Amino acid sequence: MKKTLFIGGIKSGKSLNAQNYILASSLQKPIYLATTEFIDKELQERINAHKQSRMDSFETIEEPLKLYNKILECKSAILVECVSMWINNMLYHGFTFADMKEELEKILELDKTVVFVLNDIGSGVIPDNALAREFVDISGKLSQLIASKCDEVYHTIAGISTRIK
Amino acid sequence: MKKTLFIGGIKSGKSLNAQNYILASSLQKPIYLATTEFIDKELQERINAHKQSRMDSFETIEEPLKLYNKILECKSAILVECVSMWINNMLYHGFTFADMKEELEKILELDKTVVFVLNDIGSGVIPDNALAREFVDISGKLSQLIASKCDEVYHTIAGISTRIK
Amino acid sequence: MKKTLFIGGIKSGKSLNAQNYILASSLQKPIYLATTEFIDKELQERINAHKQSRMDSFETIEEPLKLYNKILECKSAILVECVSMWINNMLYHGFTFADMKEELEKILELDKTVVFVLNDIGSGVIPDNALAREFVDISGKLSQLIASKCDEVYHTIAGISTRIK
Repeated sequence: MKKTLFIGGIKSGKSLNAQNYILASSLQKPIYLATTEFIDKELQERINAHKQSRMDSFETIEEPLKLYNKILECKSAILVECVSMWINNMLYHGFTFADMKEELEKILELDKTVVFVLNDIGSGVIPDNALAREFVDISGKLSQLIASKCDEVYHTIAGISTRIK
Repeated sequence: MKKTLFIGGIKSGKSLNAQNYILASSLQKPIYLATTEFIDKELQERINAHKQSRMDSFETIEEPLKLYNKILECKSAILVECVSMWINNMLYHGFTFADMKEELEKILELDKTVVFVLNDIGSGVIPDNALAREFVDISGKLSQLIASKCDEVYHTIAGISTRIK
Repeated sequence: MKKTLFIGGIKSGKSLNAQNYILASSLQKPIYLATTEFIDKELQERINAHKQSRMDSFETIEEPLKLYNKILECKSAILVECVSMWINNMLYHGFTFADMKEELEKILELDKTVVFVLNDIGSGVIPDNALAREFVDISGKLSQLIASKCDEVYHTIAGISTRIK
């Protein structure tokens, strides 16, 4: 029951590689846990493109907030796509860093195979506005938490995932 | 006839390392294919600084858009400096992602030694404006395309290029 | 007398790893050279959080500008936390890239063990405003300078420091 993190920039190819990774290592059809909540036209197009690329390989379920409860019910390996969107949802609904940390710690202790996908957003210039800085901070700290508990961590650039742990 | 990608952030040192790489592996004087089109004072200064660092080691040619035709004519190894600027030019002139993909695919199938230089721009916060997001998306997807067809891929940080493929 | 660079994005975990690195390799209590100058409430909170994480393991000294003179006096290994803040201070006080380059070159030639911490800020979209671009440029060029003279360079993502030199 392995935990794995795929981290990388926007359009780095981390999602596709995470999908191929979980498909290659699962005997049963894995579960695609979509954390998306806020849908505009642009995001819907991205989601549709993602769905096409998944085809029938995954069972798709959706949960924007209560990941632990959802994952607890899963009977096969789970791809959490993605943690960054979940952080966004949690902040929007007034949850704190401590809440997110607690939720993730519970998941990381579960006897389940979970693959986390997360945007690396901390390598650009420090954002002007305080909210964006808070998001970068929380994202970075939770990345560290997840990576510290994962068996394998992959960093993706230009579609190439390099194992760093 | 090898294809190589050097990817890295702004001022990461990727260009200099790509130059040294192509110089070390070429018997004939390699060709520096400059994709620059839009020139302001700041950019001109950057270009001049780049030119000084190249000295007489390269034959320099310029082409902002039609890379395939230009590369087709080249008789020695080609350094494309840089793909990011070319994407910028292509978007400005109304070309689509599909056009760029097609152009790059044709180049990647050529029996030529080509070294591509590309800015990694996807690891900061997601940009506020839709145009910048579109640019990041296209850049990321084309990075994946190029890397998938390259024999070698190098990621550069602080002047240090690490081979990731 | 080793020189080491820890580079990574915001909240990548580079500071903690740099601290653990210098603590593990020093017989004497190492020196934490804080370069912070401008303090607002948010920054003060970050500093306090950092201080708590250091506890009594370090001797802390502060110097926003004249790093060479300060380091010259140090009797044990020095952690420079961080170079990015120092660049910021130097620019604010009217110093140029050439000044910073000269100061760093002098430090890098000292017969002292120094660990540099530096923000990787060049992998996002190119900033709109010229000042931010200048900062990214200077930061990138100084990163290259430091890395070229260091014995070891570590890139940190999600708390995982990978040696790249």
